[in-house]
Amino acid sequence: MTMIDVDRHFAERRERHLAELMDFLRIPSISALSAHREDVRRAAAWLAERLRRAGLEHVEVEETGGHPVVTADWLHAPGAPTVLIYGHYDVQPVDPESLWTTPPFEPQIRDGRLYARGASDDKGQTFMHVLAVEAWLQETGRLPVNVKFLVEGEEEVGSRNLDAFVARHRERLAADVVVVSDTPMLAPGRPAVCYGLRGIASMEVRVQGPASDLHSGLFGGSVLNPIQALVGLLASLHAPDGRVAVPGFYDDVRPLTPEEREAFARLPFDEEEYRRRLGVPELFGEPGYTTLERVWARPTLEFNGISGGFQGEGGKTIVPSWASAKISCRLVPDQDPQRILDALERHLRERAPRAVQFTVERGQGSPASVVPLDHPAVRAAARVLEETYGRPADFIRMGGSIPVVPTFRERLGAPVVLLGFGLPDENFHAPNEFFTLENFDLGVRALARYWAALAQSMAGRSD
Amino acid sequence: MTMIDVDRHFAERRERHLAELMDFLRIPSISALSAHREDVRRAAAWLAERLRRAGLEHVEVEETGGHPVVTADWLHAPGAPTVLIYGHYDVQPVDPESLWTTPPFEPQIRDGRLYARGASDDKGQTFMHVLAVEAWLQETGRLPVNVKFLVEGEEEVGSRNLDAFVARHRERLAADVVVVSDTPMLAPGRPAVCYGLRGIASMEVRVQGPASDLHSGLFGGSVLNPIQALVGLLASLHAPDGRVAVPGFYDDVRPLTPEEREAFARLPFDEEEYRRRLGVPELFGEPGYTTLERVWARPTLEFNGISGGFQGEGGKTIVPSWASAKISCRLVPDQDPQRILDALERHLRERAPRAVQFTVERGQGSPASVVPLDHPAVRAAARVLEETYGRPADFIRMGGSIPVVPTFRERLGAPVVLLGFGLPDENFHAPNEFFTLENFDLGVRALARYWAALAQSMAGRSD
Repeated sequence: MTMIDVDRHFAERRERHLAELMDFLRIPSISALSAHREDVRRAAAWLAERLRRAGLEHVEVEETGGHPVVTADWLHAPGAPTVLIYGHYDVQPVDPESLWTTPPFEPQIRDGRLYARGASDDKGQTFMHVLAVEAWLQETGRLPVNVKFLVEGEEEVGSRNLDAFVARHRERLAADVVVVSDTPMLAPGRPAVCYGLRGIASMEVRVQGPASDLHSGLFGGSVLNPIQALVGLLASLHAPDGRVAVPGFYDDVRPLTPEEREAFARLPFDEEEYRRRLGVPELFGEPGYTTLERVWARPTLEFNGISGGFQGEGGKTIVPSWASAKISCRLVPDQDPQRILDALERHLRERAPRAVQFTVERGQGSPASVVPLDHPAVRAAARVLEETYGRPADFIRMGGSIPVVPTFRERLGAPVVLLGFGLPDENFHAPNEFFTLENFDLGVRALARYWAALAQSMAGRSD
Repeated sequence: MTMIDVDRHFAERRERHLAELMDFLRIPSISALSAHREDVRRAAAWLAERLRRAGLEHVEVEETGGHPVVTADWLHAPGAPTVLIYGHYDVQPVDPESLWTTPPFEPQIRDGRLYARGASDDKGQTFMHVLAVEAWLQETGRLPVNVKFLVEGEEEVGSRNLDAFVARHRERLAADVVVVSDTPMLAPGRPAVCYGLRGIASMEVRVQGPASDLHSGLFGGSVLNPIQALVGLLASLHAPDGRVAVPGFYDDVRPLTPEEREAFARLPFDEEEYRRRLGVPELFGEPGYTTLERVWARPTLEFNGISGGFQGEGGKTIVPSWASAKISCRLVPDQDPQRILDALERHLRERAPRAVQFTVERGQGSPASVVPLDHPAVRAAARVLEETYGRPADFIRMGGSIPVVPTFRERLGAPVVLLGFGLPDENFHAPNEFFTLENFDLGVRALARYWAALAQSMAGRSD
């Protein structure tokens, strides 16, 4: 097996690589907002061009019915395993933009951190894969494994067209292992392989009262206030102790094993430091579970947003016409997203007062997943992480969701290795998102080393 | 007593008067929004200039610490009663502006209605008083009564500086009767004298959770969601049957007399037409009371707005940093605004979870008022309304609040006659506010006639 000097390769090119990443980050590819439709396409085109320059073949921007996917491959390692690298080039919305220290789409490096929307989630990590593959092709003209890229533009809106795309191109996307870099490590300097993700199920509810806002003096008292109806409905979804009060919500939850709870308890985790970092008076969650258990392995029902009536400065004495709320549940194995949404909708409809109109719009749904810890691709990942970071990798779970992970397992039958280089405080989905450059530097090295380690570890398995 | 031909006077000048009112309405004098501070001043200056042209004396724009008041007088009717005419030249905010058929500050006449923010509440009605006084001065060079104008720019934000202004200028503002045109009639063609107003007490509550929005996957389950905390608090404020659940809220409420309930029941009121007009599936309110009783004479606790987290298109999977709500109570005699806010704040603080920070900001407070039905100024008003509209005036109450009415009664000891020409469907405080031109035409005539009738009715009382 040819090896390359990854330290020298990346050290020599660091400035240019960071400048390129900043170009990528300047494109406001917010998939949730239709006003940014063309920006999303620009980001896809930028990535495709960069893949071409890296030496990838069959680079294409492909239509999906929504935002496009970018695909590419390099398939000249007969007998070696085939890897599907998945990432996403779309980003979350940025509001409230006023809370950003520097504008979200004007990347800036401060204190060893690269600040920009998408820096960590997931343009930065996706770009690292491009660089790791390019390193091999530049240094040796070839790769130790066969590589396929699949980078989508709809991860932040639930990957709504990717399932169909993967199903349609099953053979073209066939791989021995899928590698995804979109998860955080537990703490700086502690590399991690993530083996579990939560799923997600979301909906928006709306209460419509009077046809237009009413003067609260002239009409107040004669109609049900839509905010009053909405808060009554939403308040019925949790018990005061924090448990979800929707009947059936916990029915299918796979309990944590005693071994897993012990392993979680051994990981370094400082509750007080975590509380301080989040800036809350107290931590709060489901009784009977630790904080790591609550965020990694227990389901939640969260309100992502609520809206109704007058929200400006000062007052406006109205009975508002409507009120709405966005709800999403994080799911754990073996909860089914549709069954959870059914239970939630039933609970709400049974309680909706007749004096208002109540409507539900269902959003994305994707189950949780856990990946096998003993797969050679996982063991190879742990090995290169230890080699690069100088300490053993943590085996962790994550509370977030990557909707396409269950799709890969179902459609391609391939295990998914979650090899992420984010840190938990990097403000994904929040103002002032950043990426820690130490992990950019160590991450590209680990990924470049991984292709050789993977070829070795899976030798004899991939034919 | 000299009489003037009001029909001829106003018929000859109708076009010019409407054009002038439209100029007044074009000024976006939104008192709640600091961005419109200069517009509010422009409206004050416009009004002052128009009062001068009408022949009023001592016209001034006076500072109050907030938005200015416009004052003027004509005091050359020795022995005749003195009237203080109160109105306001500020208007409500206009959002959501997208729901306006024509822009709120581009007045347009359609189907006998003048559409614009403030057309009915209260620039239109204030301007009618200018025209009525001008009619006497143009036709006869004098007025049958002494007149003082006090037009403020903060009615829509709780008249927060007017109480101190009235206290400071008690002697200058001294009057035998205060006349206010800022209330609606019950239905088209039915003139009304309003003898009761509800009071108001308002507050804004805010729940602060994590220092910034958090990724609901990575952190969801470990902190109390601020929207969850807020909806729990807000939902505790009402019983499911619609009654306010705050202890002590109803303690001081003066009950309706059987005679008043019978008089209300005799007024024409079509519940089904009212329901259809508001566009709600069902009317809803405090059990045991009719709709008119609920809006005229029973207290309410309304949510005017709620806000938190992501409110844009699509989804954003966050635990929001904060959530807030605007609350206002409409009060009836003998509820005290401060006692009501105390009870509300106590109720909320006792229930606020420790895992979030809970803050309250108190807003305006003003008690309810009822005015005596047998005062000669009220009887004279009923007489000219009947003469002008050709049918007897209704004696009605109103669910809205005019914060300065209790101030006039306390500070000046003068009864307040509420002689309003609005209609209940004119969308005050809502998109597409309009003023019905029939009531503009009949209203100016009735007001001009009122000064002669008032002088006659109060002869011998005012020295």
